[in-house]
Amino acid sequence: MGSRFIVLDGPDGCGKTTQARLLVKALEQAGVEVVHTHEPGDTPVGEKIRQILLDPDTGDIEALTETLLFCADRAEHVATVIKPALEQGKTVVCDRFASATAAYQGYAGGLGFELVEQLNAIATGGLQPDLLIVLDIDRDSARERLSRVARGHDRIEQNVQLSLTGFAQDIDDSGWTDARLAHDRFSRLREGFIHYAAIMQHRGVVIDASQSVEQVHEQVMRSVEKVADR
Amino acid sequence: MGSRFIVLDGPDGCGKTTQARLLVKALEQAGVEVVHTHEPGDTPVGEKIRQILLDPDTGDIEALTETLLFCADRAEHVATVIKPALEQGKTVVCDRFASATAAYQGYAGGLGFELVEQLNAIATGGLQPDLLIVLDIDRDSARERLSRVARGHDRIEQNVQLSLTGFAQDIDDSGWTDARLAHDRFSRLREGFIHYAAIMQHRGVVIDASQSVEQVHEQVMRSVEKVADR
Repeated sequence: MGSRFIVLDGPDGCGKTTQARLLVKALEQAGVEVVHTHEPGDTPVGEKIRQILLDPDTGDIEALTETLLFCADRAEHVATVIKPALEQGKTVVCDRFASATAAYQGYAGGLGFELVEQLNAIATGGLQPDLLIVLDIDRDSARERLSRVARGHDRIEQNVQLSLTGFAQDIDDSGWTDARLAHDRFSRLREGFIHYAAIMQHRGVVIDASQSVEQVHEQVMRSVEKVADR
Repeated sequence: MGSRFIVLDGPDGCGKTTQARLLVKALEQAGVEVVHTHEPGDTPVGEKIRQILLDPDTGDIEALTETLLFCADRAEHVATVIKPALEQGKTVVCDRFASATAAYQGYAGGLGFELVEQLNAIATGGLQPDLLIVLDIDRDSARERLSRVARGHDRIEQNVQLSLTGFAQDIDDSGWTDARLAHDRFSRLREGFIHYAAIMQHRGVVIDASQSVEQVHEQVMRSVEKVADR
């Protein structure tokens, strides 16, 4: 197994980070050179962009501005981390990518899938994952997993996580406050991710993330094994 | 005179800021309600983006990333400052706008005019100035004016100004170090601004900024008087 670009994505609470770690570990044990990276923020400029997106002082920010900031982060990430690693024959495992902006800002945020994809195409210079794994999850399971995660984190870290996903306004300490709004937005978000996997055709896969960590990992590995080297 | 969107732009050292101030003063004396604004940075988010672009710690930054950051700043500026002011019937005088990114990053920076204009169109939501005044200047005059400005500023402020324009690497304390490179880039920059004014047709005007401040101001006023209200 050689150079591949693998993205794990899905709604917050889908278990993406856990699955990425398990995948990286398995690949490394199989002797594959892996770069594990994430968006937003895994470059010096990206870290500063991430701080703008997370800083409570930033206040309200236009959806289009937010999307352009995510795309600036992505442009830097692709040019300075992902492309160089692939060119060196490494496999890249990335938490979140273009699919996240398309689903969150385009689908759920109402900016429109086409506009966001136009920006994604520019930001990535046309680079697409060899495999996009969407971890699909229903709202109640995501909520349950998020609150479990939150118990292990401080309030700020939790808010950071939530505000990044654009769901901060729907959630209080006990969970969703405006259940109806949150339900509609979550549905659109899921739909956005599933749609994205569909347009990726054979390079997109949707896994039911409400299964056990082991079951999901097994299906992730099966998908990865099918992907040819670049 | 009512609501108009007037942009002053041109290479650093063209006297843009001086002319914008004189224009704003003249309009106010004529009883026009004016909002004087600038890019990058004239919003809370924009100020943070500006800091990323200026912070020496940021280090090298990809031309595309830089352009997307300028466009994020522009999207916020248009949505929260320019459009609301125009909707309230005010006149907006703006130092730098889409033309600057097209000239600096697109033309002189080598990213390509079309790509930058595609991003500009998204960031501005299609909003264009009613009048774009390009203050055209030759390299020696710009250099002379910049060094006069620099004498009134500290070294950091000078570098901040230069690095923002993408010319930092060509300049040392005494001026351009790599004269040939700087000459070619400056030529492309001028060409970019002039081209931009040309595609704006009757809404674009180029003024010879090597004239006296008074002469340039007079020509600015003559151009502004010809512009119909929105």
